[in-house]
Amino acid sequence: MVLFQTIFSGSQDALATIQKNPIFFEQAGPRQNIYFNPADVTAGIVTCGGLCPGINDVIRALVMELHYRYKVPRILGFPFGYEGLVKKSGHRPIELTPDKVAHIMNFGGSILGSSRGNQAINDMVDTLCLYGVKMLFCIGGDGTLRGAQAIHEEVKRRKEDIAIVGIPKTIDNDINYVQKTFGFSTAFSKAVEAVNCAHEEAKGAPNGIGLVKLMGRHSGFIAVNAALASKNVNFVLIPESDFDLEGKGAFLEVLKDRIKKRGHSVIIVAEGAGQKYFEDKGEKDQSGNKRLADIGIFMKDRISEYFKKENLNINLKYIDPSYIIRSVPANAEDSVFCGFLAQNAVHAAFAGRTSCVVGIWNNVFTVMPIQLAIAERKVLKPERSTLWRALLASTGQPNRMIAES
Amino acid sequence: MVLFQTIFSGSQDALATIQKNPIFFEQAGPRQNIYFNPADVTAGIVTCGGLCPGINDVIRALVMELHYRYKVPRILGFPFGYEGLVKKSGHRPIELTPDKVAHIMNFGGSILGSSRGNQAINDMVDTLCLYGVKMLFCIGGDGTLRGAQAIHEEVKRRKEDIAIVGIPKTIDNDINYVQKTFGFSTAFSKAVEAVNCAHEEAKGAPNGIGLVKLMGRHSGFIAVNAALASKNVNFVLIPESDFDLEGKGAFLEVLKDRIKKRGHSVIIVAEGAGQKYFEDKGEKDQSGNKRLADIGIFMKDRISEYFKKENLNINLKYIDPSYIIRSVPANAEDSVFCGFLAQNAVHAAFAGRTSCVVGIWNNVFTVMPIQLAIAERKVLKPERSTLWRALLASTGQPNRMIAES
Amino acid sequence: MVLFQTIFSGSQDALATIQKNPIFFEQAGPRQNIYFNPADVTAGIVTCGGLCPGINDVIRALVMELHYRYKVPRILGFPFGYEGLVKKSGHRPIELTPDKVAHIMNFGGSILGSSRGNQAINDMVDTLCLYGVKMLFCIGGDGTLRGAQAIHEEVKRRKEDIAIVGIPKTIDNDINYVQKTFGFSTAFSKAVEAVNCAHEEAKGAPNGIGLVKLMGRHSGFIAVNAALASKNVNFVLIPESDFDLEGKGAFLEVLKDRIKKRGHSVIIVAEGAGQKYFEDKGEKDQSGNKRLADIGIFMKDRISEYFKKENLNINLKYIDPSYIIRSVPANAEDSVFCGFLAQNAVHAAFAGRTSCVVGIWNNVFTVMPIQLAIAERKVLKPERSTLWRALLASTGQPNRMIAES
Amino acid sequence: MVLFQTIFSGSQDALATIQKNPIFFEQAGPRQNIYFNPADVTAGIVTCGGLCPGINDVIRALVMELHYRYKVPRILGFPFGYEGLVKKSGHRPIELTPDKVAHIMNFGGSILGSSRGNQAINDMVDTLCLYGVKMLFCIGGDGTLRGAQAIHEEVKRRKEDIAIVGIPKTIDNDINYVQKTFGFSTAFSKAVEAVNCAHEEAKGAPNGIGLVKLMGRHSGFIAVNAALASKNVNFVLIPESDFDLEGKGAFLEVLKDRIKKRGHSVIIVAEGAGQKYFEDKGEKDQSGNKRLADIGIFMKDRISEYFKKENLNINLKYIDPSYIIRSVPANAEDSVFCGFLAQNAVHAAFAGRTSCVVGIWNNVFTVMPIQLAIAERKVLKPERSTLWRALLASTGQPNRMIAES
Repeated sequence: MVLFQTIFSGSQDALATIQKNPIFFEQAGPRQNIYFNPADVTAGIVTCGGLCPGINDVIRALVMELHYRYKVPRILGFPFGYEGLVKKSGHRPIELTPDKVAHIMNFGGSILGSSRGNQAINDMVDTLCLYGVKMLFCIGGDGTLRGAQAIHEEVKRRKEDIAIVGIPKTIDNDINYVQKTFGFSTAFSKAVEAVNCAHEEAKGAPNGIGLVKLMGRHSGFIAVNAALASKNVNFVLIPESDFDLEGKGAFLEVLKDRIKKRGHSVIIVAEGAGQKYFEDKGEKDQSGNKRLADIGIFMKDRISEYFKKENLNINLKYIDPSYIIRSVPANAEDSVFCGFLAQNAVHAAFAGRTSCVVGIWNNVFTVMPIQLAIAERKVLKPERSTLWRALLASTGQPNRMIAES
Repeated sequence: MVLFQTIFSGSQDALATIQKNPIFFEQAGPRQNIYFNPADVTAGIVTCGGLCPGINDVIRALVMELHYRYKVPRILGFPFGYEGLVKKSGHRPIELTPDKVAHIMNFGGSILGSSRGNQAINDMVDTLCLYGVKMLFCIGGDGTLRGAQAIHEEVKRRKEDIAIVGIPKTIDNDINYVQKTFGFSTAFSKAVEAVNCAHEEAKGAPNGIGLVKLMGRHSGFIAVNAALASKNVNFVLIPESDFDLEGKGAFLEVLKDRIKKRGHSVIIVAEGAGQKYFEDKGEKDQSGNKRLADIGIFMKDRISEYFKKENLNINLKYIDPSYIIRSVPANAEDSVFCGFLAQNAVHAAFAGRTSCVVGIWNNVFTVMPIQLAIAERKVLKPERSTLWRALLASTGQPNRMIAES
Repeated sequence: MVLFQTIFSGSQDALATIQKNPIFFEQAGPRQNIYFNPADVTAGIVTCGGLCPGINDVIRALVMELHYRYKVPRILGFPFGYEGLVKKSGHRPIELTPDKVAHIMNFGGSILGSSRGNQAINDMVDTLCLYGVKMLFCIGGDGTLRGAQAIHEEVKRRKEDIAIVGIPKTIDNDINYVQKTFGFSTAFSKAVEAVNCAHEEAKGAPNGIGLVKLMGRHSGFIAVNAALASKNVNFVLIPESDFDLEGKGAFLEVLKDRIKKRGHSVIIVAEGAGQKYFEDKGEKDQSGNKRLADIGIFMKDRISEYFKKENLNINLKYIDPSYIIRSVPANAEDSVFCGFLAQNAVHAAFAGRTSCVVGIWNNVFTVMPIQLAIAERKVLKPERSTLWRALLASTGQPNRMIAES
Repeated sequence: MVLFQTIFSGSQDALATIQKNPIFFEQAGPRQNIYFNPADVTAGIVTCGGLCPGINDVIRALVMELHYRYKVPRILGFPFGYEGLVKKSGHRPIELTPDKVAHIMNFGGSILGSSRGNQAINDMVDTLCLYGVKMLFCIGGDGTLRGAQAIHEEVKRRKEDIAIVGIPKTIDNDINYVQKTFGFSTAFSKAVEAVNCAHEEAKGAPNGIGLVKLMGRHSGFIAVNAALASKNVNFVLIPESDFDLEGKGAFLEVLKDRIKKRGHSVIIVAEGAGQKYFEDKGEKDQSGNKRLADIGIFMKDRISEYFKKENLNINLKYIDPSYIIRSVPANAEDSVFCGFLAQNAVHAAFAGRTSCVVGIWNNVFTVMPIQLAIAERKVLKPERSTLWRALLASTGQPNRMIAES
């Protein structure tokens, strides 16, 4: 068991806390007794939602662990996410073998393909039963995990014996109680390349401004880490930290000061930042996520207008690396990490765990209920985040850019 | 002297051709007699127009050659392009020394900064005279070279003795009579990364389409080379090859066939392609280039509409790597190439050449009149280009995608 | 305070453990009250021992934090390790400013240079006093930290008020009670490139064997992580896991089986592995480390001899990437990490801590006594390491390759 | 036809030269009439000698061109070089299809494997006849091309109709009348990474010397280009430029001066340099190449001894990147180039050419007799090479480092 909290004011605090509120996660790993007889197992793998570096590493490690360690005789990959679990979509599962997956980690994307959105739970469970799947590994984010939970509930209702294990995938690193998600290291590393280009563009023109939009629907982890690694960034706008555009002390004025003093500036804006500037049209994408307005283009326009109004000639270069940071192969760090996640997912399934996800906490691999993982999103809390403090130090930006009233 | 033409049907043809039309370029290199006394020389360097990989390599090599080989006592970098040559802009030249430029090749962009657009020729020549500049190296494209020519003419009118030497910079590789321009190798290599991401995105979703916009205002060299290197591309649309969108045999129909047969597709569109679809508003940017409409966004919208109309669900991912491919440091190939260009530019200036550019032809470094370099643009000629033939073979796309009438 | 242990069998166990043996590390970070008046502080930085990715990131972050956050007026870099603290060596400290360090993270190595070996403690403290250094940041490994401790003791003896703070640097990741050291991620990532080359070489010839020597004097972390990331490795030999070469069940026989079955093999050997095969000549290098015999060359020769004896033609390719994996710039992951370490080192010094190092434990940055960090080395414990278990699964190698007696 | 010479003193010179000595190469490309009926063709591919970046690109492009353009029904890959053409070796050919080769360009090495050394010509021709091979593509260096020529002669003697076409592979770029060979760009680019590490190591220690051994048995192209790209190199020792070690004006003394003045130095030594220091034992490797003594280790020892004798403490770091620069995937530049070479090889075979190689001259793809390509090696001629002149300028090393007598 892994203790949830590890920072205390001292042993008295630790003892009191544990007594009052003993929160532990289950440590992941192989178990003495396994619940399924490997010889009877058909395993299924499905990858859903947006691409993320490392999906193929996870698939590969699942197959290797199932095949070599547990000697599972049949492993099926369902193509194109939950679509592949629905008969009428016409996709057919692919049999996965060590040979077929041996080199897939060299490629970005998912060899199984992916799709967004939910499918009829009944149809999906029908398919699992049809193929005799005993354990289903669902690689995906929030929506996927909700789907997995629903599949689990239908499985339970039918009194079937199918383990449903999630491997949380979110390039934004915003899964609760999971220290980091796979692909995140690769993603922000790639983002740094775009940020450094923005820096060269900004320095390369009089009053140059480099504006980069990065992923981060609800949390600014990619934006902040990219800024910390690049060290060339002056402003990072994230969903967790409110900001105003106009008025004394608001963003545009602070930006103007910077430009006047230093002649150039680099700005990162996370895609979920500044949504207050858009009317919520209630639109959702196929995954059921709120459709965000494009803050990148919006900022580009607003900055241009502002400086035109201020009669200050600027050279604004806008970069939206978009898919470039998510479709690349995993870096070495993520590749190792994916391997551990997948192995622990297999251990969990064989130990009889279901309706669970694998994660990492206090640097220990864990197994925890899907419900916990999707209860709320992990966000950066500016008021008490060392990450945010480091960001402020690195950029020199004010803690809050709110117009004085 | 470098012979212009090297492909003949045989010696008779060669002899007849040379007799009738003896076109040679001057071979670049150090000359026995030098025109300027190095001890009297102040050299100037200016970088104009958009960024391109290798500018800093060129600056570094100019400085090293001027300083170490010719012992030039003073080298001035004029900041922010031709703006830096105009007093009222308020920029002041930077003295460049080997120490200051020793490591600049590790960075993209230009340490001098750049700007677009012309400045008053008189003011610029005033500045050259004020600082006693004897040779000015102009790193830039079309517009810059026209400016350099104008400076040269004013210098001549004033009977000043200032050598004006251009180092052609165009990421599009579209300078006439120049086999390749610096930065091009790096640029298309970086573009390949974006294209490969588009490929993973296309394969990663049912009926996935990856659409990448690449640079190439008038010529498709980056687009075509990126496709040839990536090997994952199905369609390349370039300015030199007309195409229709709708109708039998036109692009959208061919694309639909591909999607139906293979389930995914990767498309590259060069920024100058398909301009016939836009009304020419006669807008120009600061460099005097026609402002192009955004063919990337246009294609994205048209493809989406078309498949909606055709009732075929597609997953379109649009990638515009934009500045990411031009603000990076030069790769090793370009870095070596930049060194040679710069050294030859210095040799040319010291040999008393002026109003000229350095280039490469038949793999030999050349010096040629600015006038020749800017007379017209180098474009890919689909009907007799081996590059285009290779592209058709690699993509499998029809030679022409024109609607049957 | 950060709890040392976080894995328990349950709350009873946790409570009992904490009551009996309450081990906590101090959490790093800024303190309400600071011990030194920044205006009076001259800070010193010294980098010792072998190069490691990220040293320049640490130097940069130290300078930025000292300058911008604490407004320290003078920061001195002592060149070439402890040599730079000894007058007679003739080196003079360099004043470090934000401008000077702004871009150094783009380069491998250390802008201060480094050296191995200790210097007279008295001379070093004399230098610190001469320059009025109030806080000295020592970036280095084991030997450096011992030196730092000795400096601290002399400082104390003299009743001087100088904070001595270590930032542990060991590419081998073998500092005790430190979850990971900076540069390690970059190092094993670079190592993967060499390993993948060995794999291509092995597959590229009949009975091809690719043998790679990697760093790891006492611990196999680089070797094991490189193997896990590469996924193309069949054998990893590390210092912590004994192996025999000849005899039934010993390495060479197992290798022969693999070659016979699969026709190729990739082997990683950590530099500290198999030292039992060498007579200990008691030689030490300048840092006081035991001089290791070259296990890479030894293995190359022994494998060749063995297969010659066995009449099996092999094609052995030996790769020793050596400095290539340690002199590169830090990757994005390490770069961010270095920033945090350096900031926390500065906080620690200002909080009045001395004779301490900064580290990370349970994913929380910590401050702990130098004595604890150097008490013993962190090694991989094969019998209960999940890393080793994953390695065995990934390579398929036997847990122990000891000759049957 | 491509004119051999393109540099003349003027048209008179050109006319006279062409009249007297009309040397042309045949331009490569598709021909109107083809010699073989594609439907009858079985094509063979074999890769021999050391690995080189781009082999898989060549294989892929051969297969694609044969399959898609010429509709060749059967393409066989013979494994492990000429061994694969000899029955008794036990290897069997692999049928190559577009699907099998679609992604191989992402991997270094050769999917067919390779081997060194010749095989019985008769046996090889027997195999070709057995499988009905009509065209054999031999990817390899000197030795391979000699083998190809011998195969051709035996084929001719037997009055068989088999086209033998070589694609010259030499990482050293030393094939005569071939402007550049595939893989060279990638190789020297990778070498630059090792050189830059040597630079950081050299600067990172008092009197630091970074010594890098690079490929180049007979020619210093990799060494010189790596130095030009890195720009951090002070000495490049190549086979084509004699040097002495000891004596006034010889290498070690010049090195000492540099160390004394600048405190560090970076040296590249090509593997074929300085062979005069070794007794020729007449040993040859399997390819029939003279076995070279290890100049890298030799230089390392001699430099160390010298400075010990001179009582100057140095820190010498030796890097031998060896296979790391040849087993990597081709870069984008090489990848495009490989495609053209392969396509032209297929065109040549179908046009009925045999006993020929494809190359590039004056930037035009050519077909020329094997005999010409192997007649002698391309080397760098220091006395009139612009490359060497640029190298001297870049390093600042004396043109000749021969001891004064």
